[in-house]
Amino acid sequence: MKKVAIIMGSDSDLPVVTPAIKQLKELGIETEVRVMSAHRTPDAAHDFAKNAVANGFGVIIAAAGMAAHLGGVLAASTTLPVIGIPCSSKMLDGMDAMLSTIMMPPGIPVAAVGVNAGKNAALLAAEILAVSNIELQAKLIEMREDMAKQVEEKDKALQEKIKEL
Amino acid sequence: MKKVAIIMGSDSDLPVVTPAIKQLKELGIETEVRVMSAHRTPDAAHDFAKNAVANGFGVIIAAAGMAAHLGGVLAASTTLPVIGIPCSSKMLDGMDAMLSTIMMPPGIPVAAVGVNAGKNAALLAAEILAVSNIELQAKLIEMREDMAKQVEEKDKALQEKIKEL
Amino acid sequence: MKKVAIIMGSDSDLPVVTPAIKQLKELGIETEVRVMSAHRTPDAAHDFAKNAVANGFGVIIAAAGMAAHLGGVLAASTTLPVIGIPCSSKMLDGMDAMLSTIMMPPGIPVAAVGVNAGKNAALLAAEILAVSNIELQAKLIEMREDMAKQVEEKDKALQEKIKEL
Amino acid sequence: MKKVAIIMGSDSDLPVVTPAIKQLKELGIETEVRVMSAHRTPDAAHDFAKNAVANGFGVIIAAAGMAAHLGGVLAASTTLPVIGIPCSSKMLDGMDAMLSTIMMPPGIPVAAVGVNAGKNAALLAAEILAVSNIELQAKLIEMREDMAKQVEEKDKALQEKIKEL
Amino acid sequence: MKKVAIIMGSDSDLPVVTPAIKQLKELGIETEVRVMSAHRTPDAAHDFAKNAVANGFGVIIAAAGMAAHLGGVLAASTTLPVIGIPCSSKMLDGMDAMLSTIMMPPGIPVAAVGVNAGKNAALLAAEILAVSNIELQAKLIEMREDMAKQVEEKDKALQEKIKEL
Amino acid sequence: MKKVAIIMGSDSDLPVVTPAIKQLKELGIETEVRVMSAHRTPDAAHDFAKNAVANGFGVIIAAAGMAAHLGGVLAASTTLPVIGIPCSSKMLDGMDAMLSTIMMPPGIPVAAVGVNAGKNAALLAAEILAVSNIELQAKLIEMREDMAKQVEEKDKALQEKIKEL
Amino acid sequence: MKKVAIIMGSDSDLPVVTPAIKQLKELGIETEVRVMSAHRTPDAAHDFAKNAVANGFGVIIAAAGMAAHLGGVLAASTTLPVIGIPCSSKMLDGMDAMLSTIMMPPGIPVAAVGVNAGKNAALLAAEILAVSNIELQAKLIEMREDMAKQVEEKDKALQEKIKEL
Amino acid sequence: MKKVAIIMGSDSDLPVVTPAIKQLKELGIETEVRVMSAHRTPDAAHDFAKNAVANGFGVIIAAAGMAAHLGGVLAASTTLPVIGIPCSSKMLDGMDAMLSTIMMPPGIPVAAVGVNAGKNAALLAAEILAVSNIELQAKLIEMREDMAKQVEEKDKALQEKIKEL
Repeated sequence: MKKVAIIMGSDSDLPVVTPAIKQLKELGIETEVRVMSAHRTPDAAHDFAKNAVANGFGVIIAAAGMAAHLGGVLAASTTLPVIGIPCSSKMLDGMDAMLSTIMMPPGIPVAAVGVNAGKNAALLAAEILAVSNIELQAKLIEMREDMAKQVEEKDKALQEKIKEL
Repeated sequence: MKKVAIIMGSDSDLPVVTPAIKQLKELGIETEVRVMSAHRTPDAAHDFAKNAVANGFGVIIAAAGMAAHLGGVLAASTTLPVIGIPCSSKMLDGMDAMLSTIMMPPGIPVAAVGVNAGKNAALLAAEILAVSNIELQAKLIEMREDMAKQVEEKDKALQEKIKEL
Repeated sequence: MKKVAIIMGSDSDLPVVTPAIKQLKELGIETEVRVMSAHRTPDAAHDFAKNAVANGFGVIIAAAGMAAHLGGVLAASTTLPVIGIPCSSKMLDGMDAMLSTIMMPPGIPVAAVGVNAGKNAALLAAEILAVSNIELQAKLIEMREDMAKQVEEKDKALQEKIKEL
Repeated sequence: MKKVAIIMGSDSDLPVVTPAIKQLKELGIETEVRVMSAHRTPDAAHDFAKNAVANGFGVIIAAAGMAAHLGGVLAASTTLPVIGIPCSSKMLDGMDAMLSTIMMPPGIPVAAVGVNAGKNAALLAAEILAVSNIELQAKLIEMREDMAKQVEEKDKALQEKIKEL
Repeated sequence: MKKVAIIMGSDSDLPVVTPAIKQLKELGIETEVRVMSAHRTPDAAHDFAKNAVANGFGVIIAAAGMAAHLGGVLAASTTLPVIGIPCSSKMLDGMDAMLSTIMMPPGIPVAAVGVNAGKNAALLAAEILAVSNIELQAKLIEMREDMAKQVEEKDKALQEKIKEL
Repeated sequence: MKKVAIIMGSDSDLPVVTPAIKQLKELGIETEVRVMSAHRTPDAAHDFAKNAVANGFGVIIAAAGMAAHLGGVLAASTTLPVIGIPCSSKMLDGMDAMLSTIMMPPGIPVAAVGVNAGKNAALLAAEILAVSNIELQAKLIEMREDMAKQVEEKDKALQEKIKEL
Repeated sequence: MKKVAIIMGSDSDLPVVTPAIKQLKELGIETEVRVMSAHRTPDAAHDFAKNAVANGFGVIIAAAGMAAHLGGVLAASTTLPVIGIPCSSKMLDGMDAMLSTIMMPPGIPVAAVGVNAGKNAALLAAEILAVSNIELQAKLIEMREDMAKQVEEKDKALQEKIKEL
Repeated sequence: MKKVAIIMGSDSDLPVVTPAIKQLKELGIETEVRVMSAHRTPDAAHDFAKNAVANGFGVIIAAAGMAAHLGGVLAASTTLPVIGIPCSSKMLDGMDAMLSTIMMPPGIPVAAVGVNAGKNAALLAAEILAVSNIELQAKLIEMREDMAKQVEEKDKALQEKIKEL
């Protein structure tokens, strides 16, 4: 199975990315996690993307905040699917990063997930790898069933809590 | 190669989806194009998503406007990657559809592309299928080279236009 | 008198929904409170809505955050009035949930109340049931008179506070 | 069956309200349509709301644009359910009217529908009246089935259109 | 000299209004401070505005949050200048109150000041009364000179602080 | 009676200002209408504001678009009430001008009216002058009664139109 | 004198850039105008920026729309001042491009001008070159005086137009 | 080398401006730091800008919040490049200041940097001075290399942190 690259624009994005790392590990998907900046180390980002296929990656996840160019810059140098996580900074609630990530011009797509949505980025990456991997798909289906059960358990637990209101 | 499903919430979304259909055809990827509504035909949408893997689909593209629930509703019933195209309506410039598409809760990702970005949705679908398909990846790389050449030609053509200013 | 269903997308929405539960209890309206997710337990949500009339419900209140599809998903499967409460999450101040709740396509209405407006959702549900229930309407009128008196008392209390400024 | 009042803040809101009038007529619900302004004829609006129950109304629909106070002003003087339609004006895409309509303070709810959503306001009013009216509920269910059929027909028609792409 | 009425929609708006009360007191302008709600005590608000001229008021300041209808409701029942202070609540940073206050329909103006701008509302009220009161105008001019001096002093004080950087 | 100055930042703002000029003329209030730019003719704007009291003005109306500094620049040099009209330009629906006009820092108020609200700016100016002018107040009250009658007439006319629906 | 580079992300941005080209020509500043895309020709953009100093450029102007990464991408590879012009596309009024341009992370600045503000980008470039060029500064001062005169002439012309109102 | 002026609208903006002061000091660029308000000391601001060239300044940085007119007011009285830093206040996340700073009318540019982006304002000022100063340019290039190294070190450090996840 191909690896998933997780690139953050700054090491301050680690809290956003941590759930992605854990989720992918839980699914048995190998990851490489890197700090690379579209603006401060453009050459490194460029080179990483160019060689990503050759280096065994199947998906790239890019997490960045503010004028979040990282996803777009990586996508410009690879035809692998690039998933962009807009990270919120102290201001604007990540709306700047969301628009910078999602509004890509025709020809170079980035798959945007929600603001700070590290877990969903990982799941989307897994879904992409699972298109040609029945075992991984089975794991994802199982996860969904677990999630449904958790909701049902919370529904039951709620009935107790409510009595106290 | 797996097929790509293109679902629109209303047949009025056809102009947004047309570039996606053409792009996928150009890349030799088989598509099935459907009108199904998260709100008006929820059962049909539900069933489609549940059976999508069995029916040979590898990716689902969902185009919808306003409170665009279609992507989320389909994603809730499949572990295939779902790409959401937020469609603009007469008001709010598609911001309603964008937020409804991208801000999915943890556990059920939707891969959002830009407002009305039919072509990019198709390319993202192709990139996803290409993860395990070298020939398709080669086509995508070639397309990128063509795009670059077009930009270079426009750059040259521009030098003539500018003289007239 | 018919019951009011209060569905939340996640048990983390309980603080938003608690004032609704208390308000309906105070008005003597029977409620059923559930956790059901448009995305994690779509079948449960679907079934609940389909059977809501038969199960004695008159109104459904749906509280959800982010890309808040819950109200729309329930409304798609019932002709009972569905009241949507957009819940704020850590970011975007609930604007994502508000637009996802209110901007429903023609044919399937959701009655949206303000962000986190649990109490108002309950009062709106009560007003709906009161259309054909004179006693409940009398209670609501009395509540309004109490509210007015409270404002008048606060107005009087204020005159003291101001002297200290 | 109780009547539905449709109040607009200005006769320029008639295009928004027309689908509501037609929809209610189609469902056999009696309406009274009025122009009354929260700002220019506050007494009239006030009196209308105060006497609405006595005059046989079951629901009030209020359509207004800009700083859309009409719904709130009517709701302040009645315990009938008030449905607010935020109307778009030349600027801001109705966001001003939406926030003015939906963000009501605790105690006085307004049921907001989408910007210019006249048809949905009517359907919501019908759903409210149908809570205690089985025949009306049957009509609404039938309408939903018709809507679903229309989507299915559009889905079929689409298959032809797509061949020409 | 005429009095200034300061009306708040809720006594929770007192922190916003306190600087206005203090500023007007400092300028020797008599105030009456009241809690009155456009929604919970519409009759009181209505009556206050109708009788404001007769009761010796020259300006009304209205402070309210969320769907802030108070300024508009008061303005609808008087031709005195009404100054609206949009108050921020926990969400949306007062943007809801700002649009509800400023976007009044043609015919009924409200003079909007910034979010939570209690002090500026008071100064604007004073400027309005000063149009026909030379002594008050002199006081306002003096205040401006004091403000300028304070800025100059801060500018000097800054030169010391900066050395420590 | 004092005069009203109407200053626009650009002669392209004339369509916004024309209703203000007409409204003030109709009320018998003398106006002076000028083009002066906060950015292109700052000295002229500055001087105008400094001498406005001496030149017989009672109120200044400032209409400007984009980063609309005109109101603030004039207000900085006079203690007369300054009314700011945010003008919409081709983009952003005047939101830029609205925030630039309304969010003044403590100490220097601008009375903001709605986007392009020329007529309301004039009425607010008239209300300000009417604080100390009973005749003008009587005219304003009469105008309000006329407005109410017009709404009533439109309400009647509507009853005919609706029959044709 | 150093040259100014004007780079657009797409030749469809030419209307935005044309006033910049004309303005710089009028000021006697040599320009090179190019089409280069941060996403479609990243290498070309990269190389251009890296060699810009050596090629005699003093300032780079970058015009791009949507997720406008061009300014940031160029700024990442040069220490020349980069001026970003956010271009509006059919939706979102250029707010996406504005945030993508202005919200650069610490370390790599982009000097953002207003949406579609081609002329101001050129003037800013000229102001930058004029810091070390007295003749160019004199030209800019003269231009300012001309602008002021034009405003004064428009002010005079207005007095005639107003009489006709 | 010319000096850089750093003007803040209020001494409360010092935390935003401090990184700019330190950055310029680190680069050996002389600064003058002042508190001057577009609204409270307009004459001082005006005079400062008019005499800035004569007083040896090459660039002016203006930091202001809310309806941030300072940059525009300074730019109106000088042809030096003016860099505007929009400062966030308690509300609206600095969006008011951003639009007030960036959306300047044609003819008077302000170079806007991101919200609270003191460091980037300083770097942009340095880049502007470096256009005609090779030594300063060399320092900037060195800084970029240091930044790149820091990212690389963080990338290495990250590999350790991740193992603990």
